[in-house]
Amino acid sequence: MARVDFPEPVKALIAELKRLPGIGPRSAERMAVWFLQSPKAEPAALSQALLHAKESIVACPICGFFATKSFCSVCDDLKRDDQMICVVEQATDVLPLERSGSFNGRYHCLGGKLSPLDRVSPEDLNISQLLQRIDAHRSEVEIILALGSDVEGEATANYLADMLRGKNCRITRIAQGLPAGGGLEHADELTLMRALQGRRSF
Amino acid sequence: MARVDFPEPVKALIAELKRLPGIGPRSAERMAVWFLQSPKAEPAALSQALLHAKESIVACPICGFFATKSFCSVCDDLKRDDQMICVVEQATDVLPLERSGSFNGRYHCLGGKLSPLDRVSPEDLNISQLLQRIDAHRSEVEIILALGSDVEGEATANYLADMLRGKNCRITRIAQGLPAGGGLEHADELTLMRALQGRRSF
Repeated sequence: MARVDFPEPVKALIAELKRLPGIGPRSAERMAVWFLQSPKAEPAALSQALLHAKESIVACPICGFFATKSFCSVCDDLKRDDQMICVVEQATDVLPLERSGSFNGRYHCLGGKLSPLDRVSPEDLNISQLLQRIDAHRSEVEIILALGSDVEGEATANYLADMLRGKNCRITRIAQGLPAGGGLEHADELTLMRALQGRRSF
Repeated sequence: MARVDFPEPVKALIAELKRLPGIGPRSAERMAVWFLQSPKAEPAALSQALLHAKESIVACPICGFFATKSFCSVCDDLKRDDQMICVVEQATDVLPLERSGSFNGRYHCLGGKLSPLDRVSPEDLNISQLLQRIDAHRSEVEIILALGSDVEGEATANYLADMLRGKNCRITRIAQGLPAGGGLEHADELTLMRALQGRRSF
């Protein structure tokens, strides 16, 4: 006998939902059914939001952050400090830094990190744009490397430090140590080693 | 200083994605960024699939399963056994039963289960339609209750059994016991009790 399955439009919807990051076949099925059955679901609203976001969002040509106009809201802001550029891996890394409320300079999004295994080489990252930005500065600029502390983040930081040597800039790196609210018993050895190395007078 | 956030179209997309079942703020953000940055993302395809599914899918007026035409593919199938109706809670419960390949009758989707806490009473379920289907049969029909074995499923099964008493039908219920591939050490006491009660000669 022919096996009964979802009708074609539902299967097409499940197939599209399954492509989302972190969504498996079962979650996709649950979402599709929710869209069809829940009175709270508004598939037309999501449909519209998807198209609108894709059409209107571009990468800022200066820093790589999300922009709707020609430049992003950070690059457009005249009140921000031009003497500091915070280098991050992804455009999304700008948000947590902004939420911390402790940085008022500019950003530069590399668009990834060096990873030979994933075939990400320096040409794939927005590194030449960063060099141009530094060259365009008349006075010394502080380059704050806010990259992850994993192997690829370390490699990217070291590569950038090499590239920036001799330029009119001061290179710093965000501190590594014990996370806020975390006790010593949950910290791994590498974190504790770096926390000790980075100790400051109290 | 003004806090930098995602541009408005991205925030609107995140808000819509966050409404999906099982999706929190961080997953929604990750999905939205994936849609904007990943070369594999096809927001237009999902957008289209959503609209198409919502427009073309209706509940089958006989059994409540998903249908694109006037009736669903099970009710349309002339080769299926009219003498058996398998009662399930949700339209989605039809699929796992079909995948088991061991049932060739008709289905009836209640659209939920009795749950006073969630204010689901018998009038909210497709129970009167089930009674009509049984009354329309000339010969005796077997009603197989394939409801969950949780409290609400039990209550719904008992309520249906009460309602069907005196009708020209035989009421059966799918077996409860040890799941396939599971050892005794992982089974809870209630499952083992029911497995013992439901024992069959070997």
